[in-house]
Amino acid sequence: MSKVNITPLADRVLVEPAAAEEKTASGIIIPDTAKEKPQRGVIVAAGNGKKDEPLTVKTGDTVLYGKYAGTEITVEGKDYLIMKESDIFAIINS
Amino acid sequence: MSKVNITPLADRVLVEPAAAEEKTASGIIIPDTAKEKPQRGVIVAAGNGKKDEPLTVKTGDTVLYGKYAGTEITVEGKDYLIMKESDIFAIINS
Amino acid sequence: MSKVNITPLADRVLVEPAAAEEKTASGIIIPDTAKEKPQRGVIVAAGNGKKDEPLTVKTGDTVLYGKYAGTEITVEGKDYLIMKESDIFAIINS
Amino acid sequence: MSKVNITPLADRVLVEPAAAEEKTASGIIIPDTAKEKPQRGVIVAAGNGKKDEPLTVKTGDTVLYGKYAGTEITVEGKDYLIMKESDIFAIINS
Amino acid sequence: MSKVNITPLADRVLVEPAAAEEKTASGIIIPDTAKEKPQRGVIVAAGNGKKDEPLTVKTGDTVLYGKYAGTEITVEGKDYLIMKESDIFAIINS
Amino acid sequence: MSKVNITPLADRVLVEPAAAEEKTASGIIIPDTAKEKPQRGVIVAAGNGKKDEPLTVKTGDTVLYGKYAGTEITVEGKDYLIMKESDIFAIINS
Amino acid sequence: MSKVNITPLADRVLVEPAAAEEKTASGIIIPDTAKEKPQRGVIVAAGNGKKDEPLTVKTGDTVLYGKYAGTEITVEGKDYLIMKESDIFAIINS
Repeated sequence: MSKVNITPLADRVLVEPAAAEEKTASGIIIPDTAKEKPQRGVIVAAGNGKKDEPLTVKTGDTVLYGKYAGTEITVEGKDYLIMKESDIFAIINS
Repeated sequence: MSKVNITPLADRVLVEPAAAEEKTASGIIIPDTAKEKPQRGVIVAAGNGKKDEPLTVKTGDTVLYGKYAGTEITVEGKDYLIMKESDIFAIINS
Repeated sequence: MSKVNITPLADRVLVEPAAAEEKTASGIIIPDTAKEKPQRGVIVAAGNGKKDEPLTVKTGDTVLYGKYAGTEITVEGKDYLIMKESDIFAIINS
Repeated sequence: MSKVNITPLADRVLVEPAAAEEKTASGIIIPDTAKEKPQRGVIVAAGNGKKDEPLTVKTGDTVLYGKYAGTEITVEGKDYLIMKESDIFAIINS
Repeated sequence: MSKVNITPLADRVLVEPAAAEEKTASGIIIPDTAKEKPQRGVIVAAGNGKKDEPLTVKTGDTVLYGKYAGTEITVEGKDYLIMKESDIFAIINS
Repeated sequence: MSKVNITPLADRVLVEPAAAEEKTASGIIIPDTAKEKPQRGVIVAAGNGKKDEPLTVKTGDTVLYGKYAGTEITVEGKDYLIMKESDIFAIINS
Repeated sequence: MSKVNITPLADRVLVEPAAAEEKTASGIIIPDTAKEKPQRGVIVAAGNGKKDEPLTVKTGDTVLYGKYAGTEITVEGKDYLIMKESDIFAIINS
């Protein structure tokens, strides 16, 4: 997990998306153009929630989210997604 | 019912859809392209509900939902639907 | 009135639509393609209402609803409509 | 005013529309196709209102409403409009 | 100001629009097709407001409103506009 | 600042727009068709605000607003804009 | 950071956008037409927040925002963006 020096506002979280699969289950290398956008990532920074509604997720959680969730932003040369907690479907328990 | 290691957020539930019918009532085998998408499934994981609104459904419930309810996600190689409790029409009593 | 083993959620009700008219008022048999979709039915199962808002209708009530109200679902081989109480216009007093 | 055996739900009322004008002010008979849809009618049944908001109109009131207000329903062979109280503009005092 | 025997519901008011200008400022007669729809009128009847929100305007007030505010209705052969108080921009002080 | 005899309702204010620039910074005269619609004006009348929400701006304030904010109205031969306080971006401190 | 004499209303802030990058990481000069609109800026003025909801950001904060956030306004010859706090994604900690 990366460390970033930004603080999301309110109910927003900064997510580092998992790397797209490089190979199929049977070992075939997937070309870049066929790689699926991952829907899984790790929260690297989380806001303080809205008034009377603290966030449920926290930094370090691995989460599932929708295909079109969030906005891409680049922080210190790395790509992240910034999204609202309500765009997150579920937490993957480790 | 499968067991999964994910926790849906807020008012979301993870549903394992029932298998599509393989034969018609009169025993004719239905080809894959004609199989109807099932609208019935079992809840395999449920969120904690929203503030002051705990969920009514719980893990293990067989539920009915709309044709276009939820988002398909793949967890450990199996297909599930993740949806909000408000997308569920009814519980089937066993 | 049929008996079903399902429990609608929240403010939803399960309605068994009245049979479409088979004959006109003057006795002419109406072909299937000209039959009007009935807007009247009997409630066979009702949810528990929303928080602080119990339902007004109850199982056994004959109700009027809009032409496009509800979603068709099949339970044990019979067709029903599942709709929200707010889709119901009125109760017909017997 | 007709008498009906139905009870509208919540903030709905059942309105018997006034008959369309048969003649112009100068006595010319208006053909059916040119008759204007009346925007005036008498309330023949009223719901109990919403939680903490009883209805202002009551059975017997003559009311004005918008051209496209309400849904047509047929009760015992007569045509009525069922609409929400908020679709009613004003009460005509007799 | 006309007197009417109708009572608008809730936050609605009945407005008698000012007559359209007959002449330009320099005295030229304006043909009917070029007359501008007035945006000014006098309130001839007002509702009782919504729960906990009495109306600010009252019968007799001259008011300004938007070009497309309200619905035209004819009461006893005269044309009026019925609109919500929120469609009124301002009161003209006499 | 003009003086007008109208009282805006609720959270509305009457704004006298600043005159459009007549010359560019370098002194070239701008033809009428190229003049930019000003986004700055002076409040000449303000409403009393909504229930529990008095207005922040007051008569005499110079304000900035969006290009398409408000509705043009003519009062005593002069053009004004009437808009909601929420259409105002900022107050220019003198 | 510039100093301005304007006060944004309610939950609005005035942002001075960062200058667009002049060179690529490898030192190539980027022509004006290829310059990317920055999504980062410094808050030069902030409103007082809404009733019971003071702002989280304050003058001097460096913030990240969406590509289409805010409205461009010119104050004393300089270009700024005025936006609502909810359009801001995150604060960059210095």
